[in-house]
Amino acid sequence: MTSTLTLTKHHGAGNDFVVLVDIGGDAPAGPAVARALCDRHRGVGADGFIRVLAGTDGADVTMDLRNADGSPAEMSGNGIRCLAQAAVLAGAVSPPAFTVATAAGVRTVVYEPGERPWLARASVDMGRPVLGTEEPGPLAGSRAVPVDMGNPHLVVLGLDPGAVDLPALAAVASARRPDGVNVEVAAVDGADRLRMRVFERGVGETLACGTGTCAAAAVARARGLVGPSVVVANPGGDLDVELGEDGARLAGPTAVVATVVVDLAALAGCEPDDDEP
Amino acid sequence: MTSTLTLTKHHGAGNDFVVLVDIGGDAPAGPAVARALCDRHRGVGADGFIRVLAGTDGADVTMDLRNADGSPAEMSGNGIRCLAQAAVLAGAVSPPAFTVATAAGVRTVVYEPGERPWLARASVDMGRPVLGTEEPGPLAGSRAVPVDMGNPHLVVLGLDPGAVDLPALAAVASARRPDGVNVEVAAVDGADRLRMRVFERGVGETLACGTGTCAAAAVARARGLVGPSVVVANPGGDLDVELGEDGARLAGPTAVVATVVVDLAALAGCEPDDDEP
Repeated sequence: MTSTLTLTKHHGAGNDFVVLVDIGGDAPAGPAVARALCDRHRGVGADGFIRVLAGTDGADVTMDLRNADGSPAEMSGNGIRCLAQAAVLAGAVSPPAFTVATAAGVRTVVYEPGERPWLARASVDMGRPVLGTEEPGPLAGSRAVPVDMGNPHLVVLGLDPGAVDLPALAAVASARRPDGVNVEVAAVDGADRLRMRVFERGVGETLACGTGTCAAAAVARARGLVGPSVVVANPGGDLDVELGEDGARLAGPTAVVATVVVDLAALAGCEPDDDEP
Repeated sequence: MTSTLTLTKHHGAGNDFVVLVDIGGDAPAGPAVARALCDRHRGVGADGFIRVLAGTDGADVTMDLRNADGSPAEMSGNGIRCLAQAAVLAGAVSPPAFTVATAAGVRTVVYEPGERPWLARASVDMGRPVLGTEEPGPLAGSRAVPVDMGNPHLVVLGLDPGAVDLPALAAVASARRPDGVNVEVAAVDGADRLRMRVFERGVGETLACGTGTCAAAAVARARGLVGPSVVVANPGGDLDVELGEDGARLAGPTAVVATVVVDLAALAGCEPDDDEP
């Protein structure tokens, strides 16, 4: 068995993923492979690793997503948008619309090729944000709302995103929950505009987070602070959220960074034969 | 002109570089290209970008090195060891020994191919460390010694590398010097062993630094704290330094991470036509 893989690296608003189109599903791709690929110094470097597998549950393709620490992730809004670009460029699906099975359900992606092949726009339905009961936030003076987006979020309001010690605050928030949580610190920046920073479970601070963007928009909307169309300024760029009866829809740019050929045997700590599923 | 480049990514003790073998010297490779390639989220991601050019000053090849922020760098011990691996694998030079012209002079590299092609060992003469006069360190209770390794270093002793706020400390140290400085916080960990953390000018904290490793070893040696053979534990792994009459020699592993194909036109902020030399 060869251990050479050809992948593509993509990003959406700076939230970056290495993507392997593996319709046959025969590439080694467990937690050790994900960790080795996502290592920013000894590997390719990314927030997450995605395999595009054959469709399940009636979908055109399936997303198999792992965080940089190797842990499986239910869903990623920017990840699925990056997956869309890799799958379209590999000819595995056809634009404009196709379906992707994820651990959080089947999602529809709408893909608009750009004038240049490496820069497209993709939107995805993110399901219905389920808001919990407001609680005291992880820092005195803050309030927080748990949001289930298929993965767990805690949206913290009342703090300046640019001024907080985000890792420390996320540590406090995560310690309260046995399975950890993704933490967004968001502030309203106008009638239809938020800005936020996000600390992702299993990754750390990222330049953008799709599910977190939708969670923050949903909380601000529920409080009447913004309308149904919200631009959310993530550190890595703007993402657009539409909040409708059917749930949230996330849209934004997706870009190809590079084609990457790796020999898994050469990556530190990556022994494909020893990898767990 | 095509804007597609094929590069390789390497690391030495976690200090990572994207390397372009460009003997013809016709690839676009100014500061904007370096910044775009080294961007860890929107680019390939690395501590620095190296071009391997035709030899000058009688050397077999020439190293053209830029930091992640696009600034030119005189010399990098791990960078030149990564260059060696890329140049050998591309057939541009032949092991075991060859010479590399750098902005800090011509250096001899000894390259030992490993049993596996992606993992080798390389050593390089780093020139003679020139120690300055000890001065008060950037934090109360610390002492510091400036060291010229072809590039400027400040070796700080008397602090626990694992406990310091390195970026803050480096900011204080850099503010005292108009051109900035690379800052090492080092501690003696045995008769022939140091451990250190390093904050590189133009990059930030890195997992390892070759010139900094030699600078720290030279300061410890001058104080009689270690012998002429020193293992320096960098956060990304151990590097070996031999301190002799002719100067310092740095040795350690160098690993291939991936082959990377990028379209420069696709990289954010990278307009090759607009790039400055």
